[in-house]
Amino acid sequence: MTQGFTQPFTGHGGSLDAARAWFGARPDHGPECWIDLSTGINPHAWPSPWREAEPLEIDWRRLPEESELRALETVAAAHFGLSPDHVCAVPGTELGMRMVGEMIAAPAFHLAPAYRTHGEMIADSRPLAREAIDEADGASLILANPNNPDGHLFDSETLFGLLARRGEGWLIVDEAFADTHPRQSVARAIADDCPLIVLRSFGKFFGLAGARVGFVLGPRPLLARLRRRMGAWPISAGALTLARAAYADTDWIADMRDRLADDADRLDAVLRTHGLSPRGACPLFRLVETPQAGVLFERLARQGILTRPFAEHPDRLRFGLAADESELARLDRALRHG
Amino acid sequence: MTQGFTQPFTGHGGSLDAARAWFGARPDHGPECWIDLSTGINPHAWPSPWREAEPLEIDWRRLPEESELRALETVAAAHFGLSPDHVCAVPGTELGMRMVGEMIAAPAFHLAPAYRTHGEMIADSRPLAREAIDEADGASLILANPNNPDGHLFDSETLFGLLARRGEGWLIVDEAFADTHPRQSVARAIADDCPLIVLRSFGKFFGLAGARVGFVLGPRPLLARLRRRMGAWPISAGALTLARAAYADTDWIADMRDRLADDADRLDAVLRTHGLSPRGACPLFRLVETPQAGVLFERLARQGILTRPFAEHPDRLRFGLAADESELARLDRALRHG
Repeated sequence: MTQGFTQPFTGHGGSLDAARAWFGARPDHGPECWIDLSTGINPHAWPSPWREAEPLEIDWRRLPEESELRALETVAAAHFGLSPDHVCAVPGTELGMRMVGEMIAAPAFHLAPAYRTHGEMIADSRPLAREAIDEADGASLILANPNNPDGHLFDSETLFGLLARRGEGWLIVDEAFADTHPRQSVARAIADDCPLIVLRSFGKFFGLAGARVGFVLGPRPLLARLRRRMGAWPISAGALTLARAAYADTDWIADMRDRLADDADRLDAVLRTHGLSPRGACPLFRLVETPQAGVLFERLARQGILTRPFAEHPDRLRFGLAADESELARLDRALRHG
Repeated sequence: MTQGFTQPFTGHGGSLDAARAWFGARPDHGPECWIDLSTGINPHAWPSPWREAEPLEIDWRRLPEESELRALETVAAAHFGLSPDHVCAVPGTELGMRMVGEMIAAPAFHLAPAYRTHGEMIADSRPLAREAIDEADGASLILANPNNPDGHLFDSETLFGLLARRGEGWLIVDEAFADTHPRQSVARAIADDCPLIVLRSFGKFFGLAGARVGFVLGPRPLLARLRRRMGAWPISAGALTLARAAYADTDWIADMRDRLADDADRLDAVLRTHGLSPRGACPLFRLVETPQAGVLFERLARQGILTRPFAEHPDRLRFGLAADESELARLDRALRHG
């Protein structure tokens, strides 16, 4: 298999430091330098931090009041479509899903390939291919919807079917990329007597991954345990202020859903021009399968474009959205020349 | 016992929301309104976020690089006086100490009274008065140095003596308020073969409690487990940027140690004028014991000054530092008039 050089980049996306170290700070062009297409983070960040006319006031000095945390959970719950008392804010979904996983016992399965942390959440969790999903019947099951990196989207009827077959186990649905598909979310089914946990992420859709804000949605007794384990003040004042304002900006959210769909169409067109077949239902990233994936990763990196390779699937490469037309044009040129 | 009305304020300090709800938004004076003396947070916050000429650039869009997290731990380690590979940044000491506690088994004791979370860290931990500390020999022991709320300071020889008597247990020293007493820190004794864990807090001394940054200092195998449990990116981009810059500001740190000592002297003078006997070695707060503590709390609150009462010690009241001369003068007047 033609693999190229991908090793330092298969852990997670966004490793621009490593990219600079291996391929140089400015591989072959001007001041813009690296384009990061290695993540599924929206390149059009929710704008207020950079909106000069209307900056957000962040008070870093005081401990955030509990009422501010509850206000964040309330505005986020309206976005997710369920009652705020089934929503618990966490300092990043990464940490939140690990804390949840520690509260759940084996037997457990995680669909794979998916987000790497799913395999580390619950002790002794076993990987399972999507085609073999029935083998998890009666056990806890972790999956992402839409999935990362292949963008596969389960319809909610299928998920409710899976939920009914859990026995003593839990269904854990990572909806980190679900903001673009609100109708496919299963958050509305959450109830105290239902073994369903949903994970949501703030940073991806809103393009503010540095804020480290996520949410665990689930039965209230489970959230009460989670809150006790975190203690007071899990979210920084800055992240809290940003996320509260962003979730309340329903016009921006509606516009962004349309814009991301258009962006994904344009990315697909460029990839297809070069004989690649992008797939996935999530507009924030596209997966390409080709025996040339490793070579393609390295060729793009040498031209200052970072994409996302996968250690266990050297025939796969994931592309995030370009921030603008000029980045997309650079991708087009890089795919042509190489 | 004369207790007054303290119940909503005995959980932790800083509950200005509750204070406004119970005593009114502007109890009896001008626009400045509430003075918050209920916390041990430095009222002179590290200044850059509000320094117009030299604002810090925070990039909320990207996930913080691992190198940035390591850079924070390195500059903090220099401040603590040990090697960076024994330092693990956590999203607030509150969350960090709970995660550490889950990794330690009973038997365990926590000195009390102290910070409330110490009693919730380790399952089945038992409270112990300082005078009875020998009863914890052979078991894990949690204590704060200096202690909160009484400001008691163990010298490091005493702590090393306690360390030698732990048997199979751990000594966990919460140094959340130790920045004013660098020579009393036991951080320098940390090593892979030593059952010593130290907790440090960013927000108190630097006056930026909203950042939610803390540190666990300990043997590298324990920190590796802690890092695995948190996953990547535990600290938000904003908090990381602030804390890195603040710990590097060694001139500010040296000046602040002097300034806080002066402030504490002035607070002591005011309290003594009114017949109160402040005690404690930590300049960020003073403890007063008086049968009138509950009445005093309520009297001050009705004049817009929030202090810190204690449910189990209704004869105690803790005073944080006033931000400036005018706040101190208001405290003086409020104590006089009542």
